[in-house]
Amino acid sequence: MTVNFAILGAGRIGQVHAKAVTSTPGAHLVAIADPVTETAKKVADTYGCDIRSIEEIAASEDVDAVAICTPTPTHADLIEQFAKAGKAVFCEKPVDLSLARVKACLKTVEAEAAILMVGFQRRFDPDFMALKQTIDVGRIGDVEMITLTSRDPGPPPYEYIKVSGGIFRDMTIHDFDVARWLLGEEVDTVQAAASVLTDPKIGDLGDFDSINVILTTASGKQCTITNTRRAAYGYDQRIEVLGSKGSVSAENHREANIEIADDKGYLRPPLLNFFMSRYENAYANEIAAFVDAVSNRAPTPTTGQDGLMALALADAALKSVEDGRAIKLSEVLG
Amino acid sequence: MTVNFAILGAGRIGQVHAKAVTSTPGAHLVAIADPVTETAKKVADTYGCDIRSIEEIAASEDVDAVAICTPTPTHADLIEQFAKAGKAVFCEKPVDLSLARVKACLKTVEAEAAILMVGFQRRFDPDFMALKQTIDVGRIGDVEMITLTSRDPGPPPYEYIKVSGGIFRDMTIHDFDVARWLLGEEVDTVQAAASVLTDPKIGDLGDFDSINVILTTASGKQCTITNTRRAAYGYDQRIEVLGSKGSVSAENHREANIEIADDKGYLRPPLLNFFMSRYENAYANEIAAFVDAVSNRAPTPTTGQDGLMALALADAALKSVEDGRAIKLSEVLG
Amino acid sequence: MTVNFAILGAGRIGQVHAKAVTSTPGAHLVAIADPVTETAKKVADTYGCDIRSIEEIAASEDVDAVAICTPTPTHADLIEQFAKAGKAVFCEKPVDLSLARVKACLKTVEAEAAILMVGFQRRFDPDFMALKQTIDVGRIGDVEMITLTSRDPGPPPYEYIKVSGGIFRDMTIHDFDVARWLLGEEVDTVQAAASVLTDPKIGDLGDFDSINVILTTASGKQCTITNTRRAAYGYDQRIEVLGSKGSVSAENHREANIEIADDKGYLRPPLLNFFMSRYENAYANEIAAFVDAVSNRAPTPTTGQDGLMALALADAALKSVEDGRAIKLSEVLG
Amino acid sequence: MTVNFAILGAGRIGQVHAKAVTSTPGAHLVAIADPVTETAKKVADTYGCDIRSIEEIAASEDVDAVAICTPTPTHADLIEQFAKAGKAVFCEKPVDLSLARVKACLKTVEAEAAILMVGFQRRFDPDFMALKQTIDVGRIGDVEMITLTSRDPGPPPYEYIKVSGGIFRDMTIHDFDVARWLLGEEVDTVQAAASVLTDPKIGDLGDFDSINVILTTASGKQCTITNTRRAAYGYDQRIEVLGSKGSVSAENHREANIEIADDKGYLRPPLLNFFMSRYENAYANEIAAFVDAVSNRAPTPTTGQDGLMALALADAALKSVEDGRAIKLSEVLG
Repeated sequence: MTVNFAILGAGRIGQVHAKAVTSTPGAHLVAIADPVTETAKKVADTYGCDIRSIEEIAASEDVDAVAICTPTPTHADLIEQFAKAGKAVFCEKPVDLSLARVKACLKTVEAEAAILMVGFQRRFDPDFMALKQTIDVGRIGDVEMITLTSRDPGPPPYEYIKVSGGIFRDMTIHDFDVARWLLGEEVDTVQAAASVLTDPKIGDLGDFDSINVILTTASGKQCTITNTRRAAYGYDQRIEVLGSKGSVSAENHREANIEIADDKGYLRPPLLNFFMSRYENAYANEIAAFVDAVSNRAPTPTTGQDGLMALALADAALKSVEDGRAIKLSEVLG
Repeated sequence: MTVNFAILGAGRIGQVHAKAVTSTPGAHLVAIADPVTETAKKVADTYGCDIRSIEEIAASEDVDAVAICTPTPTHADLIEQFAKAGKAVFCEKPVDLSLARVKACLKTVEAEAAILMVGFQRRFDPDFMALKQTIDVGRIGDVEMITLTSRDPGPPPYEYIKVSGGIFRDMTIHDFDVARWLLGEEVDTVQAAASVLTDPKIGDLGDFDSINVILTTASGKQCTITNTRRAAYGYDQRIEVLGSKGSVSAENHREANIEIADDKGYLRPPLLNFFMSRYENAYANEIAAFVDAVSNRAPTPTTGQDGLMALALADAALKSVEDGRAIKLSEVLG
Repeated sequence: MTVNFAILGAGRIGQVHAKAVTSTPGAHLVAIADPVTETAKKVADTYGCDIRSIEEIAASEDVDAVAICTPTPTHADLIEQFAKAGKAVFCEKPVDLSLARVKACLKTVEAEAAILMVGFQRRFDPDFMALKQTIDVGRIGDVEMITLTSRDPGPPPYEYIKVSGGIFRDMTIHDFDVARWLLGEEVDTVQAAASVLTDPKIGDLGDFDSINVILTTASGKQCTITNTRRAAYGYDQRIEVLGSKGSVSAENHREANIEIADDKGYLRPPLLNFFMSRYENAYANEIAAFVDAVSNRAPTPTTGQDGLMALALADAALKSVEDGRAIKLSEVLG
Repeated sequence: MTVNFAILGAGRIGQVHAKAVTSTPGAHLVAIADPVTETAKKVADTYGCDIRSIEEIAASEDVDAVAICTPTPTHADLIEQFAKAGKAVFCEKPVDLSLARVKACLKTVEAEAAILMVGFQRRFDPDFMALKQTIDVGRIGDVEMITLTSRDPGPPPYEYIKVSGGIFRDMTIHDFDVARWLLGEEVDTVQAAASVLTDPKIGDLGDFDSINVILTTASGKQCTITNTRRAAYGYDQRIEVLGSKGSVSAENHREANIEIADDKGYLRPPLLNFFMSRYENAYANEIAAFVDAVSNRAPTPTTGQDGLMALALADAALKSVEDGRAIKLSEVLG
């Protein structure tokens, strides 16, 4: 079976998914939608698909699945609209910045028995998958302590920060999902610290640029997350998991695998500087996994519930900073 | 301008180039030729191209360029045929196993003013390109000593070894080309040692499985090449260049960028085990460079002369083993 | 000037310091004291020094300095005794497990204008010193985020755990000192999580074996510390400092600098398994620094105040675990 | 039993051995000899030993062993003198620059049944010992191909080059010994290339600064050696051994185990820049092994024969360069 796709939103991430869809066996790109005609046309020309409006796509019989790549405030409405239209839905994170809205949305999805996958691409990165498999086969024993290091090369534009929901909901949310994926047990309490160290303007906008979080599960497993919005050496994405029998870690990706040695020392190139090049394979694998789930009517590997839980952890982290105390996840989940 | 391709030979390497052509902007795959219909059909079905005979392709007005991926003994004839047919020609190495035949073939190409590129894909590997650029910008000063390490995970089938022309012409030829590329000066003398260490059957077939070569240029620059047909840890491909101001080296590629630590130590995965996965990007870049040369009527980055010189170095190495002395390249070039 | 030493306590750490003293230019080992005669005799025989009682040493005119290597509960009393006796005092951490007792002790030291150095050997590790110097010369800009990873290969004996003061005061105290050293600014708040994951008996004894701490300074700099009492791959001691212009990290030490590659992958040996081999150079440098300070009547590089502050951070961490909230350091310092 | 030492020659390497002797359990430094009184006095003062003439030492009843650290032309005579005097002899490499003289000297040693150890310190480097042990336990199967990389940071003084016997006898001789040690089989043929690339003055003195050698054993095992007299990044000393089941390699030693990351990339410090710091532990282990052999009347781990064979390989390499052909070791050994 071929899964026929429409992509909603032809921006940066929409283009990433257009490329992923067209290069995935079993997937076919039928249509692109974007309020800016020129942007839509660029994707349509590159990949040879139609330009249609969102309404037209919802009514299109030749569309099986949509990938929602529009701005965050539209996600929940679109999920509901396309779940009701009988389409399989892939939606970029987050479902919404409000937990209540997410819950309502997921109820609709459930009522429609619709297929929904929320985009947490890191789970599909080949290195992280190899790390996860190392854990799953028991190679390091029981998971005990996890250290996640995620640092952006630089901050996003101020305009984006304003509407991003803050660093925990925008950036750390990926680490929260990875933490849940690797801990193998839900988080019980969240402790967080947050500072503005790279640019006071970020503080003026009510956000932070440097955070640390400690997650603890009921059985005492712990995970620390360290995030910053500035790393001179590139896009830093590391995972380290300590188990009872050993540890497993995933390394960064460099611009090239070369090393220059001179009287200053041994120099390897900086890291890949952009999440799209760093996670290029992950995005492709993610769409392939979605196609696979849709084709086989199987559960999607990342669900609406995963989106909900990651957001709840973000809310708890923010509350921990505000209240200066450890927050039970149950406090924010209600 | 779009370059319309036909691929001659739908085997392993033909499939690699079919994929490369279809994913290269500015290139279009028109036809595939293979005496085994089923093999040809597989490529035609996957990439949506015609199946044509070699004769038909030579006469096809809608074909601008051919990629010769047939067995070695057919290369020189096909190059001549398609040069005369006015097609741009990409040919897998080697042009031929006989220096005299290569010379004759290149004369025909020259007489026809045809475009010919010989496939030395390593020059197009992103890491090796970064290494070369490091040299070219003067970062390590003057190149003095080069160490090339190439080890195959295991030997090819005996049937292939019989017709391969021997390890120097089949395997080391890639290192000879890399050596010439990096030395920036033609080789003057060749010294070589060759043994059978991994499988006596290889010796019975008149070949070697373990060799070392020292190349020396007129100005005294040296390059060592070490090759073996067996490496338990995977497909080993390393370059190290020492210059007057420092050195630059290129690292191997692993199955995954993870590391497992336990009471036995710190373990990273083996190397990629196959030249096609190791050089996947190189093959794509190579075709892109050919397309670029054809589109712009520019010189190809690897030429028939490069093919000739690499083969001459192989002949000199073999002669060095046989005669137990340093061989001047001029002795074999005539 | 030669500094004449007596060492109080001939146990494991006393022997380390006996070796350090005898191999330090400008230092001379005069006497060893230990209630167990046999233990004292071993040191005396090895290094050719007297055996004297603590009282005799306090009265010895030929002793300039003492190194206190006795059990923790005796530290504060001995510091006071020898400060009053006019000896320069080097004391292993901690001064005492009670902040109040430490404060009283330091008052006595101050009143006597005595020289006191508290043993935080990590500051004298060559790699960590190189890391610190990298920061001090401005190479990574302003320090923003620090990650300290310290994992013991295995837990100490239960008997020791009982009297150790708990993991924060016994193990993390070294990281607290390193954090203060590198942050360049006092800690304002402490958040901590603590679990028992490796051995329930440790929990029965009222202690933890797995902890994470977040330290935050007034200006918002953050430091995370992760500690466990079990790491299958050896004695794990890493520092990573992120600054505004880059980062600097210090690597672990292995049993040997070799790598074995086979079909399982690339294997490097485990880490050195014992703090005494890992920090052998650090202990030597530490004593040399003390000798230097005593000889030149200069301030000691690690002071009683450093001992006090590290202990206060440990108390704050424990309180954070108990109260489930961020603790201001001022709350415990009083 | 304590082995009482006299050291002949108080220069750079004599001082290294004085330190090694005084810190080796079971060894005692009795006397130092040097024609320059001031140099001898420096060692005598540092380590509290006598100053004696060579004649006095030969006649000293309280001297069991001598370490010959004088200039090369004196080595053979001193070995003979002290062999006859009944002393155990440790001699720095080489025994002599003339194979004939070495043979004559070894005959005298044999006739006197004297203990002789020739100083090839690399065999006692902890990393190289770990590598050797990895081979000996069968971890990588049968040894097949070895790559030795030795590069000096810079050339020795011209005055030294003049009397050094040339790069093969002075520098490569260490690699020849390591090759023999690791191959586990004598070398059959030697092929070498030699150039002057770093300083034409070295060529004017009749020497080379950049060489490559291929050694082949009767069974076909091969070893390449690459040497240069200039490496901008420090003192480069690497070994890589390929066996039938895998490979083992030994890494270089750096000034510090730190890494700095910024927008230029990831920088590790240069290598240790001097053979004495790089091989500090090797020199200590070497003397300990000699002391052990003397104490137990056991064979020394490196013998006069080892010195002879390494020199023969150097002679063969030079002859290969001169004659432009592969040289049988039997041709030079006679």
